[in-house]
Amino acid sequence: MPSIAQIKHLASLRMSKYRQKYGQFVVEGRKQMEEVFHSGWEIEGIWGTPAFAERFSPAYNFEWMTEEENKKCSGFDTPPGIMALVRMPKMKELDLLEPFVLALDGISDPGNMGTIIRLADWYGLKQILASEDCVDVYNAKCLSATMGSFLRVEVVYSKLHPAAAGRRVYGAFLDGTSVHGLKLESPSMLIIGSESHGIRPEAESLVTEKITIPGKGHAESLNAGIATAILLDNLLR
Amino acid sequence: MPSIAQIKHLASLRMSKYRQKYGQFVVEGRKQMEEVFHSGWEIEGIWGTPAFAERFSPAYNFEWMTEEENKKCSGFDTPPGIMALVRMPKMKELDLLEPFVLALDGISDPGNMGTIIRLADWYGLKQILASEDCVDVYNAKCLSATMGSFLRVEVVYSKLHPAAAGRRVYGAFLDGTSVHGLKLESPSMLIIGSESHGIRPEAESLVTEKITIPGKGHAESLNAGIATAILLDNLLR
Repeated sequence: MPSIAQIKHLASLRMSKYRQKYGQFVVEGRKQMEEVFHSGWEIEGIWGTPAFAERFSPAYNFEWMTEEENKKCSGFDTPPGIMALVRMPKMKELDLLEPFVLALDGISDPGNMGTIIRLADWYGLKQILASEDCVDVYNAKCLSATMGSFLRVEVVYSKLHPAAAGRRVYGAFLDGTSVHGLKLESPSMLIIGSESHGIRPEAESLVTEKITIPGKGHAESLNAGIATAILLDNLLR
Repeated sequence: MPSIAQIKHLASLRMSKYRQKYGQFVVEGRKQMEEVFHSGWEIEGIWGTPAFAERFSPAYNFEWMTEEENKKCSGFDTPPGIMALVRMPKMKELDLLEPFVLALDGISDPGNMGTIIRLADWYGLKQILASEDCVDVYNAKCLSATMGSFLRVEVVYSKLHPAAAGRRVYGAFLDGTSVHGLKLESPSMLIIGSESHGIRPEAESLVTEKITIPGKGHAESLNAGIATAILLDNLLR
């Protein structure tokens, strides 16, 4: 059983500032747990509830935690019943030799961020460049939406402009050249903005090619995750 | 102020069976509210909290509702503070003359369902065919994810096979012909399955063309909303 201090510590890691302070984060849920267990990342503790153990009988060892304790420190309203304390890897720098960089400007929704990380993994990208005000990857909802892809795709938080130097920079707007049939030129960067604010002026000033996803109906916009999916499918084919 | 009976009634509409019974549903949130207000759909009541009114001063009239009352009948953990009671339109039949039908097999996640409705709207589809066990459109989370597109795209719940007759039927699988460069033949149907179960055997038996989204990385799959986005972008361009 976790001590009261441990519960408090795990609960504190729901906040980005404590994750940064301690260099740790919490992984929750069966699928994520299995992926992190096989990843080689440094796991400092695993706790599971009896209900979880009964339902899934996992292959890894863990300490017991009551439902109530789980609820106290989970990042979810309905906790999945299994959680691990994981050491955060050292943040690397962006690899500027990569011919293509996916860059995010002010993505604050954790679900969208997680979806984008998963998409980057699908399309074989190893890193994502994120403006410093993007949501923290180690947020519980974001981790969950990555479906384990956070283990393979590193998000580098930094200003966008240094990486734009010498690159053709594509930006997704509601008006622009259709992405259909567009030939990606190397080295390049694709900037995705949030649905509510779009690409903000500072990032827009980096854009050399405004591109768009042609639609025929009446929906006004697409969310950042969906837009990233369609753009990457077109640009990285 | 709503009466206790009204609060109970609004709360009951969180469940599909009561929505069906009364032919009503609840729309919540500022963006959805504005869209439904201008849609011509029959609105039978609007309630807003003082906090909502102070922040947004909407152009439509509404009755007051306390935060506590709002919480009691909202479909969200964090209620947006504005809700309307709306009459459900009569379900029409699927228009079999349409050259392209988007069909869903067992989509149970309301967020994915809402995303797919919004995508259908983006690509100009007027209807979606959904297997009878797909999640109900009038679920609060689903409505919210449509961002108002539920007003323009009708979901017809029915067996899939009658509409498949005489059509080329594309099905999204992890293996199959790449969707890149695929030329859509008319009349046709695209079947999307859920992420956890894929296209189930009964629906699979209708498929004449297995198609796939080519990836290069290590993510095992894509969720139903993301897959629909990429497939529609390719097939309906």
